[in-house]
Amino acid sequence: MAEVSNKQVILKHYVTGFPKESDMELRTLTLKLELPPDSNALLVKNLYLSCDPYMRDRMSKPHDSYVPSFTPGSPIVGYGVAKVVDSDNPNFKKGDLVWGMTGWEEYTIITDTQALFKIEHTDVPLSYYTGLLGMAGLTAYVGFYEVCSPKKGDTVYVSAASGAVGQLVGQLAKLFGCYVVGSAGSKEKVDLLKNKFGFDEAFNYKEEQDLDAALKRFFPDGIDIYFENVGGKMLDAVLLNMKLHGRIAACGMISQYNLDKPEGLHNSFCLISKRIRIQGFLVFDYYHRYPQYLDMILPCIKKGMVTYVEDVAEGLETAPAALIGLFSGRNVGKQVVTISHQ
Amino acid sequence: MAEVSNKQVILKHYVTGFPKESDMELRTLTLKLELPPDSNALLVKNLYLSCDPYMRDRMSKPHDSYVPSFTPGSPIVGYGVAKVVDSDNPNFKKGDLVWGMTGWEEYTIITDTQALFKIEHTDVPLSYYTGLLGMAGLTAYVGFYEVCSPKKGDTVYVSAASGAVGQLVGQLAKLFGCYVVGSAGSKEKVDLLKNKFGFDEAFNYKEEQDLDAALKRFFPDGIDIYFENVGGKMLDAVLLNMKLHGRIAACGMISQYNLDKPEGLHNSFCLISKRIRIQGFLVFDYYHRYPQYLDMILPCIKKGMVTYVEDVAEGLETAPAALIGLFSGRNVGKQVVTISHQ
Repeated sequence: MAEVSNKQVILKHYVTGFPKESDMELRTLTLKLELPPDSNALLVKNLYLSCDPYMRDRMSKPHDSYVPSFTPGSPIVGYGVAKVVDSDNPNFKKGDLVWGMTGWEEYTIITDTQALFKIEHTDVPLSYYTGLLGMAGLTAYVGFYEVCSPKKGDTVYVSAASGAVGQLVGQLAKLFGCYVVGSAGSKEKVDLLKNKFGFDEAFNYKEEQDLDAALKRFFPDGIDIYFENVGGKMLDAVLLNMKLHGRIAACGMISQYNLDKPEGLHNSFCLISKRIRIQGFLVFDYYHRYPQYLDMILPCIKKGMVTYVEDVAEGLETAPAALIGLFSGRNVGKQVVTISHQ
Repeated sequence: MAEVSNKQVILKHYVTGFPKESDMELRTLTLKLELPPDSNALLVKNLYLSCDPYMRDRMSKPHDSYVPSFTPGSPIVGYGVAKVVDSDNPNFKKGDLVWGMTGWEEYTIITDTQALFKIEHTDVPLSYYTGLLGMAGLTAYVGFYEVCSPKKGDTVYVSAASGAVGQLVGQLAKLFGCYVVGSAGSKEKVDLLKNKFGFDEAFNYKEEQDLDAALKRFFPDGIDIYFENVGGKMLDAVLLNMKLHGRIAACGMISQYNLDKPEGLHNSFCLISKRIRIQGFLVFDYYHRYPQYLDMILPCIKKGMVTYVEDVAEGLETAPAALIGLFSGRNVGKQVVTISHQ
């Protein structure tokens, strides 16, 4: 029976506060290339890993959450693209490409195959299935079309706008006929928003002393739709600048994930005076919409109507730094880790 | 030309912090019982005045708000029930009873007659048109049926539940087949909720050291619907106790109205992890639904399916204390001021 060496990134211990590279470590085990009998499982070779902000929550000790905590001493788990090496499952065969939950390691035995998507379209970069054609893309799609209730001509503000979700939300909003402003944390990202993704305006939130004033500059008549990725002070400033009957899609709050106590939100009365709707959502509730999303987005990609920027780290050993970089905004575009190109 | 003495309650100056009786004063002017020619106006005799929490905002100096500030030196303005004494308007005639915006004085000349409702049903106490059959009742009706998206069997929590809006929300939710818990600020009010309004459970929030624990006691499986009247710490505790896909109708935040800086809300991430919707609303957007509301509520009142408790202060001179009492919770039930019974 064949054995392979299997490099892994494991979580060493539960994390409090800002995560560090040293909270994870690399180790190499040996794996038998054999599936348990009647396991219904897959043995996959991992190709690309996705680094996503929600993963921070899984690094904390178990608590009341929508996602379970990682297990210290075991590999990090996240979205990825993989190739089937062996299958004990009638729905998959050797050589199939899949995306879904996998381990941060070279080879993974996946028993929960229900949550895997088979990759049918390979005339796009495979790594896109960690983001634009995976969880982040579907998040942007249902978040914008379903949760934001957009109308042509609406003014739309997107925070963390150069991230995996934000860059697509802005482009979908532009295609829909909205006025779109994005914020990000560096000049390079702001340039991307304006010159690559076609946002009408963009600003570096780190250079603004007064977020309220910044928003008033870009939205003198107010914001119809806010796509919320950051939370905290930004959300508070946005509430002051929403239009009557504005909609907020609450997708993420990355600014708060490493704080012991989240920042306070002081402008909640605006919800009433401006009749604002905030709707929190999670993509897990919308997986049934994935085929419809693919039908829409694949032609847009091929025609160049939608573009996509990835920040690719090469090699599993770069994964800890890539993950942590999300929380300081080091990545420019979607953060991907390549384990193997095939 | 006849003249009458016209007692008024005027705002002396803009208010900061907690309002005091001495922020208002009584004065008596003389009024000519004559309407300006071609004024299209009404001269009304005021019968009942409504004291409502939103009026606090109008006592502050002009600021970005959904309601204009009162004018110092002029009478307080609010909802009331009045009788038409003279009409220069084809839609109203002498003797008609109306409810809508009027002055805190014995007689008022109303020029904005668009916002007045003619009272057609007089086989109920006229004072009810300051609340149950007026703004507060319509607020509860659209807030519960439209904003909360209720389902039979939902668990419903109402804060400030013995107030004008809260008491009806609870009863509508019970009639709809929900499990309903209310909170209020005294034993007397809690007794009312359980024994008069038929709430399943009720508690005195002032006796709870830990609001989160209190909510867990009454909602071990969580809250589907929160009807928000108070804001602040209560909203923060509720967010921790909402069920997945819960709905919050944000109607008022009375705990915050006298604070220079509103309390911070720290649990907003629950919006995402639990996919919660918060929808702020104002009754002004729903006045067109009033006839439909009356068709529903009048039979309920007559059949005893809905009950109503008012706290009635007699005489215009009691109005300042009655208004201020709202913010310390002195009133038990809807706060009304009687100026004249006919």
